[in-house]
Amino acid sequence: MTDSLSSTRSITKYSHHLFSRVEDDIVIEFPLTIYINNEEFATMVCSPSNLEELVIGFLASEGIIHFKKEIKEMTIDQERGFAYVQLHATEIKNQQFFSKRFIGSCCGKSRQFYFQNDVRTAKTSMTSTTVTAEQCIDLMKKMQDTSVVFKNTGGVHNASLCTAHELILSRSDIGRHNALDKLYGYSLLNGISVRDKILVFSGRISSEILTKAAKIGVGIVLSKSAPTDLAIQLAEDLNITAVGFIRGSSFNIYSHPKRIVLESK
Amino acid sequence: MTDSLSSTRSITKYSHHLFSRVEDDIVIEFPLTIYINNEEFATMVCSPSNLEELVIGFLASEGIIHFKKEIKEMTIDQERGFAYVQLHATEIKNQQFFSKRFIGSCCGKSRQFYFQNDVRTAKTSMTSTTVTAEQCIDLMKKMQDTSVVFKNTGGVHNASLCTAHELILSRSDIGRHNALDKLYGYSLLNGISVRDKILVFSGRISSEILTKAAKIGVGIVLSKSAPTDLAIQLAEDLNITAVGFIRGSSFNIYSHPKRIVLESK
Repeated sequence: MTDSLSSTRSITKYSHHLFSRVEDDIVIEFPLTIYINNEEFATMVCSPSNLEELVIGFLASEGIIHFKKEIKEMTIDQERGFAYVQLHATEIKNQQFFSKRFIGSCCGKSRQFYFQNDVRTAKTSMTSTTVTAEQCIDLMKKMQDTSVVFKNTGGVHNASLCTAHELILSRSDIGRHNALDKLYGYSLLNGISVRDKILVFSGRISSEILTKAAKIGVGIVLSKSAPTDLAIQLAEDLNITAVGFIRGSSFNIYSHPKRIVLESK
Repeated sequence: MTDSLSSTRSITKYSHHLFSRVEDDIVIEFPLTIYINNEEFATMVCSPSNLEELVIGFLASEGIIHFKKEIKEMTIDQERGFAYVQLHATEIKNQQFFSKRFIGSCCGKSRQFYFQNDVRTAKTSMTSTTVTAEQCIDLMKKMQDTSVVFKNTGGVHNASLCTAHELILSRSDIGRHNALDKLYGYSLLNGISVRDKILVFSGRISSEILTKAAKIGVGIVLSKSAPTDLAIQLAEDLNITAVGFIRGSSFNIYSHPKRIVLESK
């Protein structure tokens, strides 16, 4: 897939007080418009790989579908950047809630549940999975070793679905959320259970990323980068273990440290 | 402003094979919902500083306003996260175009002009401003020196409006676009001319960031990170000089290198 994520371009390089013309790898940004039942639904900017997974993961994340079987037909016009999805249902679920802010105390969740759709689709983690501290460091290292495009272009985010011992599946995208949606879409397409899995992510843990992880259904999120305060509150509420700044031989645990242990059980 | 961008939290640190409890700075993520003429318009997630600038810059970037004087009244309820904007106009400009994808060959621009609003508000740069290679490196260094929050939390993006010699104004935000909207809002509020200025940015130059820069009206964009292919095409079309990977004593020029010179004129 790597070749579809970047392209080569002639650029001007400045180094040691001199200009020169060189070839460079540039990350591709691809607009994809999704139609549901012949109606325009959303346009996303993404890396043009694994588009079927991306669309399915996105629709599941938005609460439009819950299972692969709800999709009657899907056609992707990669050249023009359109995805046409036909659902068995004629009415789109939850459509009245899209982009509507929701503030209320009834759900007992933090303030960041400002989209009604998030309240409906984010899951509280019930997993008892644990991972050792050294496994956290090892999984991050493994994911970074697989991400060739990032090294070449500095341009994409990487996400992996893992067990405590190994990466099961890795996806890259220029959009932070898209990398997660691709994992989600793959899981739905292939019937993979995710509740006992670990999500490893190259980027910052924002509230949106944490919400996405909760929708996918994982209990442990490992990141190379920093979380936000809202993401931590959300992780507390949803019983998710959020780990950040995995660099070298150290890291920080921001919520529910019970799942990160010194010795494996 | 720094203190409003991050908060302190107790976390678990793993280092040298041991767990310990420590205090850490965590970046704040703040949802802000904008009402225009008593109607809900958009919700953004941002760092809670310079909110008035942010709202004005965002509305200008969306083509809702062009001048400060079009705003009759603005109230910000920081505690609850709402901005109430009253415009002199009773109808919102361009509302029919929001989030509608636009593909056509009539405008002669690249494919990334997929939002009609972008076509209407992005400007082709006509500036003859130049900057020397060493000034590019120096401006990036100056911006990084001013960004305390990034060093503490690893969480925010920084943007500065500059002349060839100095930073005029710097803004930080957890949202990439928001940092630019704050600069734009400040410029509109204070009547600063931006066409001969330089934009320095900590993050990746995506098509959205490049479009935002074109809306603000700058001719030179300097970044520490990588641009995307669409951003480069857009920069070519809009006559904007895009410079990336400014690190140490080198960088790359991706479009219109004419504005980056060895010696100042």
